[in-house]
Amino acid sequence: MQERYDIAIIGSGPAGLSAALNAKIRNKKFIIFGNNNLSKKLEIAPKINNYLGFYSISGKELKDIFLDHIKSMKINIKDERINNVYAMGDYFTLMSNGKIYESTTVIIATGIEYTKALDGEEEFLGRGVGYCATCDAPLYRDKVVSIISYNKNGERDANYVGELAKTVYYIPMYKGIYDINDNITIIKDKPIKITGEKKVEKLILKENNLQTEGVFLLKDSVSPKELVPGLKIIDGHVEVKRNMQTNIKGCFAAGDCTGKPYQYIKAAGEGNVAVLSAIKYLDSLK
Amino acid sequence: MQERYDIAIIGSGPAGLSAALNAKIRNKKFIIFGNNNLSKKLEIAPKINNYLGFYSISGKELKDIFLDHIKSMKINIKDERINNVYAMGDYFTLMSNGKIYESTTVIIATGIEYTKALDGEEEFLGRGVGYCATCDAPLYRDKVVSIISYNKNGERDANYVGELAKTVYYIPMYKGIYDINDNITIIKDKPIKITGEKKVEKLILKENNLQTEGVFLLKDSVSPKELVPGLKIIDGHVEVKRNMQTNIKGCFAAGDCTGKPYQYIKAAGEGNVAVLSAIKYLDSLK
Ligand SMILES: Cc1cc2nc3c(=O)[nH]c(=O)nc-3n(C[C@H](O)[C@H](O)[C@H](O)COP(=O)(O)OP(=O)(O)OC[C@H]3O[C@@H](n4cnc5c(N)ncnc54)[C@H](O)[C@@H]3O)c2cc1C
Ligand SMILES: Cc1cc2nc3c(=O)[nH]c(=O)nc-3n(C[C@H](O)[C@H](O)[C@H](O)COP(=O)(O)OP(=O)(O)OC[C@H]3O[C@@H](n4cnc5c(N)ncnc54)[C@H](O)[C@@H]3O)c2cc1C
Repeated sequence: MQERYDIAIIGSGPAGLSAALNAKIRNKKFIIFGNNNLSKKLEIAPKINNYLGFYSISGKELKDIFLDHIKSMKINIKDERINNVYAMGDYFTLMSNGKIYESTTVIIATGIEYTKALDGEEEFLGRGVGYCATCDAPLYRDKVVSIISYNKNGERDANYVGELAKTVYYIPMYKGIYDINDNITIIKDKPIKITGEKKVEKLILKENNLQTEGVFLLKDSVSPKELVPGLKIIDGHVEVKRNMQTNIKGCFAAGDCTGKPYQYIKAAGEGNVAVLSAIKYLDSLK
Repeated sequence: MQERYDIAIIGSGPAGLSAALNAKIRNKKFIIFGNNNLSKKLEIAPKINNYLGFYSISGKELKDIFLDHIKSMKINIKDERINNVYAMGDYFTLMSNGKIYESTTVIIATGIEYTKALDGEEEFLGRGVGYCATCDAPLYRDKVVSIISYNKNGERDANYVGELAKTVYYIPMYKGIYDINDNITIIKDKPIKITGEKKVEKLILKENNLQTEGVFLLKDSVSPKELVPGLKIIDGHVEVKRNMQTNIKGCFAAGDCTGKPYQYIKAAGEGNVAVLSAIKYLDSLK
């Protein structure tokens, strides 16, 4: 039988970490998804003065301090991206690449995506545009697929899709060495627009035009709307009550994804409230 | 002309301090009221594990770290208790003992009062029961006044009332040496009940019965309801929106006073949000 967690935290920025601290203290069976480097956004801040307790600290220093804190409390981050969360009634199913998790409550702490949507991205969503290449790969057997990837993890996905699809174009939005199989074409160019009649037909780049039947955008985070079908979004942010509850029973949210201001200590404070609300909800089920 | 602040922060716990950091960074004309020892509640916590960034720290250590942070940013706490805040339309008037301040916005970060109300305290409020002895002293010229004080600051107030009233009983709820003038009677006893017909007539203690026309309760904090007439309270807490705005334009709140959970990082996060909302409001007036 599938193991079931009390609390699944999605995101390893200040919001997710703060939630994890309290889940640990309260001795809950929990799991936190994210990456072992915590959060890119956390790391790039040049100088932070407004996180009470730390004066004139860099994002990198703060990241190491947070890492020390969770390490001292024996909290391990599961280095996986969650692609979908489905509300099953009294529990949730979480899908990562090829793996399935179950949890009674979920805390969305995924931050916000700064990259603007591509022209045509929203229009063709579900009609050739997708965010999880490995999930949807079977649909593209013997077809042409373009993968726009914002991080190195996308290479693994591209190689996997390459086993099924006829042609795979890989458009990396980052610099470095690409561990890409030989049957995949790397295209270094800037995506401009996705076009088509009823379904995706073309990906227009600054220098190239690609005939393609599918376009995958592999971003660092998934928008909450994509992540959790049915989640109520207002002005691009997850709608929450003061106790961080969303419109879905058992589903809570915290941090940048719930709205402005985008700030470390706001995110950490909300993570604390969200997990204590989740625990209260768990207690109410007993 | 009375000097007018952009932002007045009432309270020097994590919520008030976090607000002050951002007011300073954003270069606002602000003042923070509280005490130079920050917050008694902050100090007494034996061991804190859930303030992200600090593992296994005592309340006293955390207090010193917070003090260092605000000192580095040249933020000074005004060691005064605010007794009343009046909404004047486009600004607020704040009353401390004998002094008046003006500010365009106010942030209530006063924490919560753990001491339970005395039997009869709420019933006789405004009919002999009060929280600011120095404010109301003139009403008790040549009368009998009892002062129940939870801290040493009450001694100064008692001495002042003693100059006007016929008799002053001082009932200290703390231990130590009392700097009380000779014309004041110190009574070491436990208050039980306030009684009377239409107005206060008696203060009943465990061992004594005092005939008295006024009873002042000098607590560490004033309840927000007393502090700001017209403020909307729900279940004993200040009602706030997600942006920390109260029902009064220009008045924001943060920390324990806005509701559970009572937690450091929740308070600090809310202080951040409250002051950024206040700044947004100030900008909208331009
Ligand atoms: C340059 C810069 C400077 C800044 N300076 C300051 C400052 O001085 N002070 C301040 O208070 N704030 C500052 N901020 C804002 C601050 O970084 C954010 O408010 C904060 O990081 C938000 O925390 P969070 O936990 O909500 O999200 P994030 O920090 O964005 O963390 C979200 C995490 O979740 C992971 N994730 C997302 N989706 C998934 C998924 N589906 N599965 C698994 N993991 C997922 C992401 O990889 C990421 O690690 C700055 C931001 C930037 C960009
Ligand atoms: C024993 C104990 C242990 C705790 N342990 C933890 C823990 O491990 N983790 C955790 O997260 N939380 C803990 N807490 C809770 C935490 O202390 C509070 O949540 C936090 O201090 C709230 O911050 P605040 O800024 O809202 O209010 P407070 O810290 O209460 O600060 C309010 C300040 O405002 C001042 N003030 C009030 N009224 C006025 C006025 N009218 N004029 C001027 N100044 C005024 C007060 O004197 C005080 O200094 C603990 C609390 C206690 C009592």
